[in-house]
Amino acid sequence: MENILILVDIGNTHYHIYKDGEIKHLKKIGKFNEKIYYISVNEKKEKEFLKLNPDAINLKPLVKFNTEYKNLGIDRIMACKSVRTGTVIDAGSAITIDSMKEGEHLGGIIMPGLYSFKEAFIKISNNLKIKYTNDFDIKKLPRNTNEALLYGSIGALIRVISQLQPPYIFTGGDGKYLSQFIISKYDEELIFKGMILTIKEQYENSAS
Amino acid sequence: MENILILVDIGNTHYHIYKDGEIKHLKKIGKFNEKIYYISVNEKKEKEFLKLNPDAINLKPLVKFNTEYKNLGIDRIMACKSVRTGTVIDAGSAITIDSMKEGEHLGGIIMPGLYSFKEAFIKISNNLKIKYTNDFDIKKLPRNTNEALLYGSIGALIRVISQLQPPYIFTGGDGKYLSQFIISKYDEELIFKGMILTIKEQYENSAS
Repeated sequence: MENILILVDIGNTHYHIYKDGEIKHLKKIGKFNEKIYYISVNEKKEKEFLKLNPDAINLKPLVKFNTEYKNLGIDRIMACKSVRTGTVIDAGSAITIDSMKEGEHLGGIIMPGLYSFKEAFIKISNNLKIKYTNDFDIKKLPRNTNEALLYGSIGALIRVISQLQPPYIFTGGDGKYLSQFIISKYDEELIFKGMILTIKEQYENSAS
Repeated sequence: MENILILVDIGNTHYHIYKDGEIKHLKKIGKFNEKIYYISVNEKKEKEFLKLNPDAINLKPLVKFNTEYKNLGIDRIMACKSVRTGTVIDAGSAITIDSMKEGEHLGGIIMPGLYSFKEAFIKISNNLKIKYTNDFDIKKLPRNTNEALLYGSIGALIRVISQLQPPYIFTGGDGKYLSQFIISKYDEELIFKGMILTIKEQYENSAS
């Protein structure tokens, strides 16, 4: 396996780029000289990317993943791929929750992301302005509006997750913030770990 | 206590009117000749209502309710008032969840309403079109997008509720639909029951 490579995860709002152990989140993509592997959930952004980087290799047709879930997003597949047993929570514009047991994907859940909850509340009433604080405690029943809104978004998420297969591994933009509310890990690189594993499996297959 | 009276619950989108054991939900209010008791969470709608019905009696300053929750909405107070022990879920544009134990309000939670979840999902991605069906099963991990969205909205609500004080009593526009997913009751008249109880308490006080 080559050491100098770039991994690109094309999302709906950003290009997430992994290079030399560092992750960057860009709104616009440039041209790279290194070997590129990528995944994409956004056709338009993928086209722009391929125009500048026509030799980039799409990992979607190469990945092996055991699930009965119909049309599971390639980003969710990659986030789960390096997790043998546990629940992966990818907290971006949506929050996806996927459970793995002994290498098998058991199913998944989609909740609105934190920004999406915030927008939904304010649209219902101007009085429902949520402020995301660190001192939320799921064991206390809320006694004011902000606590009630935190419980109705973060608390609901934690209640859903805590019924699923541990350990809990958060990733994505809001993953670090959310991981403080339940015994869990945060791994910014989870999707890229799945991509690297997929590339390794390809090399092993071609070597045997 | 008079038999001919009208109860009006002024919400953010509708006037909810109770008369002769029947409930009507109106966008516009008219003039009534009967004695009117009302509550309101919307100042603008309340003004319009009082212009036509200047003698209507606001129950807000008269109600006795035991809580430490700051600025609890008068509609939530009335929905809880006739419940000694249990959790009240009022499913409207927002879903409010309030727990009572031996006549004391323990606290409450606010989640987006079903329409609000629907809007939030579609705004994240056109692929996230939720269809609210009756065959959702919280015991099964979702294996397609619609199941995943149902779990991320209704399932999250059920997970939150099931940690709270039983019995569970649903009210509000989406209350009947939601009540099928957990052992619970549905009571369309809950807020009006609280209003009637408040009026009765007034009469008892003035009689003694």
